[in-house]
Amino acid sequence: METGTGIDLLVHNIGTLVTMAGKAAARKGAEMSELSMVSNGAVAISEGKIVAVGPEDKVRAQLGNAAIAEQFDAGGRLVTPGLVDPHTHLVHGGSREHELALKLKGSTYLEILAQGGGILCTVRATRQATEEELYAKARRSLDIMLLHGVTTVEAKSGYGLTLQDELKQLRVTRSLNESHPVDMVSTFMGAHMVPEEYKGRSDEFVELLIRLMLPEVKRLNLAEFCDVFCEHGVFTVEQSERILVAAKALGFGLKIHADEIEPMGGAELAGRIGCVSAEHLLAASDEGLEAMERAGVIAVCLPATSFNLRLTRHARARKMIEFGLPVALSTDYNPGSSPTESIQLVMTLACLNLGMTPEEVMTAVTINAAYAIGRGDSIGSLEVGKLGDLVIFEANNLAYLPYHFGINHVNAVIKRGKVVVSEGSRLSQ
Amino acid sequence: METGTGIDLLVHNIGTLVTMAGKAAARKGAEMSELSMVSNGAVAISEGKIVAVGPEDKVRAQLGNAAIAEQFDAGGRLVTPGLVDPHTHLVHGGSREHELALKLKGSTYLEILAQGGGILCTVRATRQATEEELYAKARRSLDIMLLHGVTTVEAKSGYGLTLQDELKQLRVTRSLNESHPVDMVSTFMGAHMVPEEYKGRSDEFVELLIRLMLPEVKRLNLAEFCDVFCEHGVFTVEQSERILVAAKALGFGLKIHADEIEPMGGAELAGRIGCVSAEHLLAASDEGLEAMERAGVIAVCLPATSFNLRLTRHARARKMIEFGLPVALSTDYNPGSSPTESIQLVMTLACLNLGMTPEEVMTAVTINAAYAIGRGDSIGSLEVGKLGDLVIFEANNLAYLPYHFGINHVNAVIKRGKVVVSEGSRLSQ
Ligand SMILES: [Zn+2]
Ligand SMILES: [Zn+2]
Repeated sequence: METGTGIDLLVHNIGTLVTMAGKAAARKGAEMSELSMVSNGAVAISEGKIVAVGPEDKVRAQLGNAAIAEQFDAGGRLVTPGLVDPHTHLVHGGSREHELALKLKGSTYLEILAQGGGILCTVRATRQATEEELYAKARRSLDIMLLHGVTTVEAKSGYGLTLQDELKQLRVTRSLNESHPVDMVSTFMGAHMVPEEYKGRSDEFVELLIRLMLPEVKRLNLAEFCDVFCEHGVFTVEQSERILVAAKALGFGLKIHADEIEPMGGAELAGRIGCVSAEHLLAASDEGLEAMERAGVIAVCLPATSFNLRLTRHARARKMIEFGLPVALSTDYNPGSSPTESIQLVMTLACLNLGMTPEEVMTAVTINAAYAIGRGDSIGSLEVGKLGDLVIFEANNLAYLPYHFGINHVNAVIKRGKVVVSEGSRLSQ
Repeated sequence: METGTGIDLLVHNIGTLVTMAGKAAARKGAEMSELSMVSNGAVAISEGKIVAVGPEDKVRAQLGNAAIAEQFDAGGRLVTPGLVDPHTHLVHGGSREHELALKLKGSTYLEILAQGGGILCTVRATRQATEEELYAKARRSLDIMLLHGVTTVEAKSGYGLTLQDELKQLRVTRSLNESHPVDMVSTFMGAHMVPEEYKGRSDEFVELLIRLMLPEVKRLNLAEFCDVFCEHGVFTVEQSERILVAAKALGFGLKIHADEIEPMGGAELAGRIGCVSAEHLLAASDEGLEAMERAGVIAVCLPATSFNLRLTRHARARKMIEFGLPVALSTDYNPGSSPTESIQLVMTLACLNLGMTPEEVMTAVTINAAYAIGRGDSIGSLEVGKLGDLVIFEANNLAYLPYHFGINHVNAVIKRGKVVVSEGSRLSQ
């Protein structure tokens, strides 16, 4: 550290500092348990980026007599990298609580869909909503995510399904990125479903996606990833491949909702065409997981979705880790299958329902989630040169977070070196 | 309303007001779906009690020109009675996150116990803790409960298991009741387990409970209920009956942890001796449920416990409701089987895992929970003469609360006519 460099923020008195520092790649399999931890740590941030991190005495020695503009006392608490939510359908119109009663009476997803409910309901509400309405609703959810410790969020389009309405969703994501502390990563998912007006003509809709939508989204630079829902009754493996290959040619990174319900070969496709990540994977075959492992595809597990859908089957996270796959976790926040912004509840569900350890879970919501959205070089760990994104938790150790479930453990959140959530209970008495 | 009576607080502009007004008894079976609801409602509170409630225009007409000291604009939101958590082990020492790793590796509860872990660990920590330490820890959890909309909490002793340590726990509950906005209901549960020093001599411990502890707790007026853990390896049906009959003779109300793991006849006992409530009941027989129904025993279901224990079997709430039982819900907050303060997550779990409807769930966490702790005459519904305990939710309708899961929907909480939790996001930017 050169003398004279000013420090904007020094976070000190960190009881346990989980840095996740290490190799420059997503952590695969057994590596997911290897966290870099420091006792009595500190992190120094300048111009939004980390300039020193480690044991407090070493960090202070390194800073020498550099000016420190602000100090943040972590009070001996647990500090981790800012959490990353790598799979959300954040921007949408309406909510679907009216379907809860139908679900409890035993109606299946397809029965609700046949009555014009389900995702069709959200598509209608999203098309009808103005850009301002979509922004206001999404911003509120983004606030909640930040309050729960999330500093980077991926958001998918896919409830517009016309060029105009998809662009509307994507512009909201761009506006959020510009105006909200949380950093956004934008994914075009026009291939979320075949819209009603293309019923029975899915190949025509695929052509529309390839010829019209993808190039236009690219031209306007509104998304860096392209995602496809590869599932029976949605898009076939062959259609998914056509869309993703076209997206790759345009320079999009690739993602795929794969093998959620039936083993269709989505995981295999993800490996074959080099997706950055494949999502859900409840029904993925061993061959599919192996193909993903060979190609370095990240498995994004979404346990809040299977919880909310009351499934008894879960993604085989232990098998994935055994196969040497890097696993990430996400809320899948959306108004149908996963109406929750809480990555912390997802962390508990990953332990209880997927059998992941607290260490694996922390890896899955930080460094692996960062790599799943192409940000492994700038976030997901606390290392010199990365963004100053940190969460201070009201906890002494990692296991406490998934163990003590259902509440928000965040004490404070620091984003790009700025304190954006701070202590202060809402209890007014 | 007499002219001249001063109103301390008028809560107005309530979009949907769930009053739960109706009959003066716990709601049984199908009655659990009958909520009294008012659109454009208002509630007037004077000296901590409700003096007018209903449609805003009628309430205002009724108030006439009475002075109104403070108005609270609910902003068109959903307002319900203050939530009641009727079964917690709030006061205890330590936490047990270190057992999560053992659990994930497949260790059973009994294996962890055999290593000196499990409840033994909490008993050690509780015995070692000072009264001040227990108070500070419990107060923090009580703050979290209040932030989630809970205005009355039952708390059990049972981690001391010596007279002195049980009294220590109970005094903490009394201190909380005196110093915290939340009202406490105290339960003596010395019969939570047989302590190590009485291993193999459980009948002697039962004698100690009956001869020494119960009379002393009564003399000091430190609890109004007595609870017993009736289960294989804990207390037999015969021992439970001896304890509860002795407690009844001293004037305690009765509760029982019954048939959590095996159908032992705990539900039948609850009916036979007239318990106010029976808890858990996952394995309760049809005969047991019928005995409870005949005796008017309230079934307290604890779905967060079965969730956290990863059980595939759940309490048969639908069968209970069909049998005409009144059902209440609770967190069972404790450091072992249910480390959560969130009654809102319990509401979601009751829908998803017990098949209860949002209306039944609301009944179960308000009026039925109030009757389960002997407070049906003063809380659990919004009626003239009852306490001014209200929750303002960031929601338009009841179903939204369990549907949108994992986050805290509370906008504000009013306890005895005072605003004790108010809006104001912790987002500092
Ligand atoms: Zn998704
Ligand atoms: Zn209990």
